[in-house]
Amino acid sequence: MVQPHSMTSPAIILHTPQLGENIGATARVMRNFGLCDLRLVDPRDGWPNPAADTMSAGAFENGVFATVHSSFESAIADRSFVVATTARPRGMQKPVSDLGDALQRLRLAPSTSAVVFGGERAGLPNEAVALCDLILTYPVDGEFPSLNLAQAVGVFAHGWAVAEGGGVPGAFSGAADPPATRDEVLRMFEHFEDELARAGFFFPGVKRPVMVQNLRNAMIRAQWTSQEVRTFRGAVKALSHGRGKARVTRDESEV
Amino acid sequence: MVQPHSMTSPAIILHTPQLGENIGATARVMRNFGLCDLRLVDPRDGWPNPAADTMSAGAFENGVFATVHSSFESAIADRSFVVATTARPRGMQKPVSDLGDALQRLRLAPSTSAVVFGGERAGLPNEAVALCDLILTYPVDGEFPSLNLAQAVGVFAHGWAVAEGGGVPGAFSGAADPPATRDEVLRMFEHFEDELARAGFFFPGVKRPVMVQNLRNAMIRAQWTSQEVRTFRGAVKALSHGRGKARVTRDESEV
Repeated sequence: MVQPHSMTSPAIILHTPQLGENIGATARVMRNFGLCDLRLVDPRDGWPNPAADTMSAGAFENGVFATVHSSFESAIADRSFVVATTARPRGMQKPVSDLGDALQRLRLAPSTSAVVFGGERAGLPNEAVALCDLILTYPVDGEFPSLNLAQAVGVFAHGWAVAEGGGVPGAFSGAADPPATRDEVLRMFEHFEDELARAGFFFPGVKRPVMVQNLRNAMIRAQWTSQEVRTFRGAVKALSHGRGKARVTRDESEV
Repeated sequence: MVQPHSMTSPAIILHTPQLGENIGATARVMRNFGLCDLRLVDPRDGWPNPAADTMSAGAFENGVFATVHSSFESAIADRSFVVATTARPRGMQKPVSDLGDALQRLRLAPSTSAVVFGGERAGLPNEAVALCDLILTYPVDGEFPSLNLAQAVGVFAHGWAVAEGGGVPGAFSGAADPPATRDEVLRMFEHFEDELARAGFFFPGVKRPVMVQNLRNAMIRAQWTSQEVRTFRGAVKALSHGRGKARVTRDESEV
């Protein structure tokens, strides 16, 4: 669970983005993962942009703050560490890293860092890359390397939330039923096996040990809860009683 | 660099997806990261879908193979390990993991595994989650948890490519110039400092050692290449010669 806060997370810069849809989708996924400082360098269709609003799913009203800059230099003026994202090598003398390494660097000074994503048509111009400290690249397929702009931001944003310590959200814990004790499980096995024996399942009798072992091995893997043990024992009871009843019914019908 | 191959990567299942745009964007990002087996359970607008084609950026013609299934059961019939993605706890007795753990499990048997993403309106129904082995969840902000469908797939797809060993693509290596030897760098420093001394920069002279140290410390951090050393020495030469020339010009104008 990550709360958006510009002092603890890097700015996301879109360099000359074209489609409002991608700007909106970027804002949405930033907000999903706790990022809030969005900077637009010379967006083609101006700002605000209705298509961006639609795709943002309300992110602009829920913490993502967008600013427009006439130049890349202005967008990075208050930053001290800037990461360029690109799928193409630029032949520049510039360190290149994957997401994990870039995140480590960014977390040293998140409040003065930024990650820059190039526009849809041509990505980041070399002049912009030259002003960055590090190139971040994803392991895309060389034959199909062009990521959607908002997807590229989304991959970063998820990585950021994970690096910030977000694992499985807390809401997922505590909902689980307590595991059954081994005694509950053993009594469940015995109940099941007793009914199976009464039903003539273990035949020939010499095979009973290996049949029991197979059943127990399969069932123990499921790590039953107390509630599940109770439910299963109810099922065994219903089946054995029901079987008796079914036989009676069939016998009666044969009369 | 990852090549798409259905025998070595999990299937991606979209459960009752609504928007063709999201199906297309899913296919695109799958192809970016080397996934190719896309299964659609009862897509609302039928199949094929022109909006999906548009957003796919050609993924369907470049390796992503989409199949349509009338039920979730049919879509997972040939799978042995199925991961459900959800942002909401379901109160089910089911292991929950983050992306890293889920990837480890999936890589044990990628060719018979699948990852399922719920439709836009309501996510995965509980009946579908109940048929899965594991719940995968991302560390989304609890106040803004709803990820775009294709974004959710994109985060997984990037993770898959990284787990498969994709780091920095090979194209990024080898382009770099060789680093300068320390001797080249030292001679560059001496050249620079000699010209600075001739220009009267080191004043008072007693401060020369600390001024040199500051300059050397700042410049050494940049890890110059041989080419950069040559370029900088050319720059120093031009400045010192140019300065002389400028003085001459000014002197002449003063005549």
